[in-house]
Amino acid sequence: MYKAKAYSAASATSQLASTTIERREPKETDVQIEILYCGICHSDLHQVRNEWSEVMPTVYPCVPGHEIVGRVAKVGSAVKRFKAGDLAAVGCMVDSDATCPECKAGLEQFCRNMTLTYNFPDKHTGGVTYGGYSESVVVDERFVLRVPANLNLAGAAPLLCAGITTYSPMRHWNVTKGQKVGVVGLGGLGHMGVKFAHALGAHTVVFTTSPSKKDDALRLGADEVVLSRDANEMARHAGSFDFILDAVSAQHDINAFIHLLRRDGNLTMVGAPEKPLALGVFGLIMGRRSLSGSAIGGIAETQEMLDFCGQHNITSDVEVIPIQKVNEAYERLLKSDVKYRFSIDMASLKAE
Amino acid sequence: MYKAKAYSAASATSQLASTTIERREPKETDVQIEILYCGICHSDLHQVRNEWSEVMPTVYPCVPGHEIVGRVAKVGSAVKRFKAGDLAAVGCMVDSDATCPECKAGLEQFCRNMTLTYNFPDKHTGGVTYGGYSESVVVDERFVLRVPANLNLAGAAPLLCAGITTYSPMRHWNVTKGQKVGVVGLGGLGHMGVKFAHALGAHTVVFTTSPSKKDDALRLGADEVVLSRDANEMARHAGSFDFILDAVSAQHDINAFIHLLRRDGNLTMVGAPEKPLALGVFGLIMGRRSLSGSAIGGIAETQEMLDFCGQHNITSDVEVIPIQKVNEAYERLLKSDVKYRFSIDMASLKAE
Repeated sequence: MYKAKAYSAASATSQLASTTIERREPKETDVQIEILYCGICHSDLHQVRNEWSEVMPTVYPCVPGHEIVGRVAKVGSAVKRFKAGDLAAVGCMVDSDATCPECKAGLEQFCRNMTLTYNFPDKHTGGVTYGGYSESVVVDERFVLRVPANLNLAGAAPLLCAGITTYSPMRHWNVTKGQKVGVVGLGGLGHMGVKFAHALGAHTVVFTTSPSKKDDALRLGADEVVLSRDANEMARHAGSFDFILDAVSAQHDINAFIHLLRRDGNLTMVGAPEKPLALGVFGLIMGRRSLSGSAIGGIAETQEMLDFCGQHNITSDVEVIPIQKVNEAYERLLKSDVKYRFSIDMASLKAE
Repeated sequence: MYKAKAYSAASATSQLASTTIERREPKETDVQIEILYCGICHSDLHQVRNEWSEVMPTVYPCVPGHEIVGRVAKVGSAVKRFKAGDLAAVGCMVDSDATCPECKAGLEQFCRNMTLTYNFPDKHTGGVTYGGYSESVVVDERFVLRVPANLNLAGAAPLLCAGITTYSPMRHWNVTKGQKVGVVGLGGLGHMGVKFAHALGAHTVVFTTSPSKKDDALRLGADEVVLSRDANEMARHAGSFDFILDAVSAQHDINAFIHLLRRDGNLTMVGAPEKPLALGVFGLIMGRRSLSGSAIGGIAETQEMLDFCGQHNITSDVEVIPIQKVNEAYERLLKSDVKYRFSIDMASLKAE
């Protein structure tokens, strides 16, 4: 074991504060990564504050962070794809059983024995996993991703969660050139959805409740912006969408969007509203439409997404902050006061 | 025009009563069918009582019935596939524009210019279409189906709506041998779903709230019966279904069934609850599950379904009634007091 600087929360009501954690020395198949940037995902805040206590109670101290980009410091003797000095990334998962049907299908995110990057039982240490708000991390090679050299690293970090979460359902539901694709909600997830839909060649429409977001939506790649509270504007798009990505985690009227789908169209939810949504079944029956959910993506697809980003020079729009501002960033996140993701410059932790 | 005996309702609060309607003489591409049996669908009752006044107000007199089986009496000069004396069937549709993308895809049910079999503007007469509670009907050849000779005709009639409504989503979502398929609700639709899932080779599980339905479910082809109110029984099936057909139109907890789907599993609703259902999004996100709706099926698929029924000797379980008992049958339908569909023997109308 070795000691690494990190930021952790001591309880659900504590601020994140500087600490030292123990990491395992890299084993045969491990990659040790010096973390350069770590994105801040809303999940980090939920977990730190124990807001998912029923399904995933938080074990303290908690070191969040699952949008990790860095440079390889050291590799185990059996590691083949990485060497010291390489760029590398880690997302929401650090292990899985590799043998179940889900893993064999490349869908490690659905493996029953999958290990999340933080706050999950850690078979190596006997404690819980610690995430990327740290100067380094040690991860099995299978869960380490390559980062295209042309990408801005601060902006690449959020690809590991916000990126794959929005890319995966578009690929699964076959978003292709010439289709009409909607993105509901222009936040950390939504703004990535816009970039991907545009890069995949779709006619991309952003739905927002804020007229002030229009210019930014167009800048990000939207072809049209629709104010979802304007019933007339919505009606003009009835039955015309092949696919809609719904990235809103607040309560909202999904039926209004379902009615915008064409026959066999799909609406995938990647935001998870806390309370049940009211679903009118008639909108699904008419047009054989479907409604589904999606959770991140498998490792192979995450690599595919990163390579796609490299080809299209796609990164997240980030506000880079030193780790000392992480508590302030959480407060701003709650007010949606960020365009569109915070990325922590981990040099600020090294310097402490 | 010629006169035909029929049963019609004069208003939303009237009983159905004997009457005479006008039918067009068969034109070039028309088939005139002497109706032998007509199934009673719950939609008939909704329409007759104007319970869908907002989306499809009823025009009176209303002659319902869209599960029609009969014998060809006469054909127009351009009709190729039918001749007098052939068995023939008509379902929920009698026309469409034949040129739109939906029609070209064989999905006439989604054609914007589709004509329903009853209570729909009739381009030939200038009035509304009249359904199958009648001694005869005249329909364009494109919407007339062949009936396999081995099928019991009274039991074949409900295939035209209850049959295709349950067959189509199973085909669309690729129900195949060896899969695990659930059917929620054992009524007119559900009992057909059980027969099709079984015939398609799936391990078929019926979900019901009535322990008394267990034996019948097994007789119809179910491999297992689960009492959906028993949380322990439900939990044993978590994450194990490839496909679930939900044929319940009353309010119910769909989330409990969504959690039974395996990764990429689909739940299709063919019953349409009047009020919105409470949908927990988390169940969809975990396992990339999807929820969808389905409405009858296209003409080609309806023929495929009838041929499949011929091969597997599948018909609906029916209680045959004379048309003079139709009002009583409606009251029993409201109490789910029928196993599992009423089929009107139209000889009773001839005899009036």
